[in-house]
Amino acid sequence: MRVVVPFDPETPNERLSSLFSLAERREFAAAMLGDVLAAVRGAGGRPEVLAAAPLADTPAAAAVGDAPVVVDDRPLSEAVNAALADGLPAAVVMADLALATPDALAALFEREGDVVLARGRGGGTNAVVVRHPGFRVDYHGVSFRDHVAAAERVGATVATVDSFRLGVDVDDEADVLDVLVHGADAADQRAAAGRANGATAGSAAAGWLADAGVRVDVVGGEPTVVRDE
Amino acid sequence: MRVVVPFDPETPNERLSSLFSLAERREFAAAMLGDVLAAVRGAGGRPEVLAAAPLADTPAAAAVGDAPVVVDDRPLSEAVNAALADGLPAAVVMADLALATPDALAALFEREGDVVLARGRGGGTNAVVVRHPGFRVDYHGVSFRDHVAAAERVGATVATVDSFRLGVDVDDEADVLDVLVHGADAADQRAAAGRANGATAGSAAAGWLADAGVRVDVVGGEPTVVRDE
Repeated sequence: MRVVVPFDPETPNERLSSLFSLAERREFAAAMLGDVLAAVRGAGGRPEVLAAAPLADTPAAAAVGDAPVVVDDRPLSEAVNAALADGLPAAVVMADLALATPDALAALFEREGDVVLARGRGGGTNAVVVRHPGFRVDYHGVSFRDHVAAAERVGATVATVDSFRLGVDVDDEADVLDVLVHGADAADQRAAAGRANGATAGSAAAGWLADAGVRVDVVGGEPTVVRDE
Repeated sequence: MRVVVPFDPETPNERLSSLFSLAERREFAAAMLGDVLAAVRGAGGRPEVLAAAPLADTPAAAAVGDAPVVVDDRPLSEAVNAALADGLPAAVVMADLALATPDALAALFEREGDVVLARGRGGGTNAVVVRHPGFRVDYHGVSFRDHVAAAERVGATVATVDSFRLGVDVDDEADVLDVLVHGADAADQRAAAGRANGATAGSAAAGWLADAGVRVDVVGGEPTVVRDE
C-alpha cells in the first residue's frame, strides 16, 4: 500500500516550545519521522514523504532513507488530497506517531472498508486508509467526526481500528510522557520487523529524548516530564 | 472472568470541577460506571464493584444493576489487592473508561499472559488481567511501568493490549472531548451486545453529557468542550 506521510521540516511541534528549542524540535520531529517510516516499512507499506518544504539541510534529510519525497507547500488537507489523487488505495499516516508499530499499522492497512480511520486524541484523525475516489480529507476541526460524515456523503463504507499506539500524536508534553513510557517497547517492535526485512532500525525518538536528558519523574504523586540540565 | 471495578461514589472526577458541580460529577461518574459494567457484561465478564464508600443514596446505586458491591475504604491499591486475593484469574477495570466496548474488553480478557495490561494515558494502567498470585497492583506514580517491573520481579509473563478505547480514562476536559466524539459509537456497541445477551443497555455517559448541554465546538480552529447555558 502507498502510505503518504505529511511532514513539516521547518516549524514542527510548536507546542513543545517550552521543552525544546526550534533546532531541537526539528531533530525530534525527524527522529519521529524515521520511526514512523520504519513502522510503515515493517507493516509492508511503501512510504512517501509529503514535505511542506525541502528537506535538504534539515535533520529529516537523513531520516527518510529511500522513501520518495514530494514537496508541496499548500495547506495540509489540500496537499494530502492532491497526493491521494495520485493513486488509490493509499493511507495517510501522521509523522508524529512515535508509538506506531508494524503490527498496529498492519491492522489498519488490512482492515476492510472504503475509508478506515484511526482515532487521535482530541477528535483528530491520526491515520486513514482511503479506497474510495470520492473521499477527501479535511484535518481542520473535529476531523474524525468530519471524516466519518464525508465518507457517508460519498457513499463510502467506514471502518475504524482501535489502537492506543496510533492514537498518540506527539503534540504537547503529555504526549511526550507517553513516548517516554511506551516508546522503547515500540522501538523494539520496529527493530524486530526491520531485522526480519533485512533493514536496520533504531530507537530514534525515544533515544533522542534520552540523549536530551528528558525523562519521567513522579512529582507530587503525578507522572511528569522533566529535563535534566 | 471476575472483573473488579473500583469506584469512588463520593468525590469522583475532581479535575472536572470547572465543568461540573459535585452533584453532577457524581451523576456523570455513575453513568460511566454503568457503561463500564455493561461493557464488562457484554464481554462475558462478571463485574464486582469495589466501592470506596456505600452506594446507597448515591446515583451509582441504580447503575450497578445486579453486580455485587463490596465497600472497602482503604487506599485504592490496598483495596484492589485485597479483592484480587479473593480469587484469580481476575481483571481490574477502571470505572471511568467511558469508551470501553465489549470487543475491547474481550480482547483484554482473552489475551494470554500472567499479567495483561491496557495502557492509560499519562503512564497509567486502565485495566489489567491478573493470573499470577504473586502480583500486586500499585496505582501510584507511573503505574504502567511499575506494573511491568512488578510482574517481572515475581516471574510473571507480561502481555499488553493496544486499545484507544481502554486508553481513555475520564480525568480532565480533554478526556470529556474524546467521550463526546467517540462515546455514541461505544454506546451503540454496548447496546448491541446487551440485546444479544437479552439485557437492556443505554448510552449513559454520552447521553448524560448531551442532557447537560455539553458538546464539542471548534474554537479558534481547535476542538473544544463547551457547555450550553
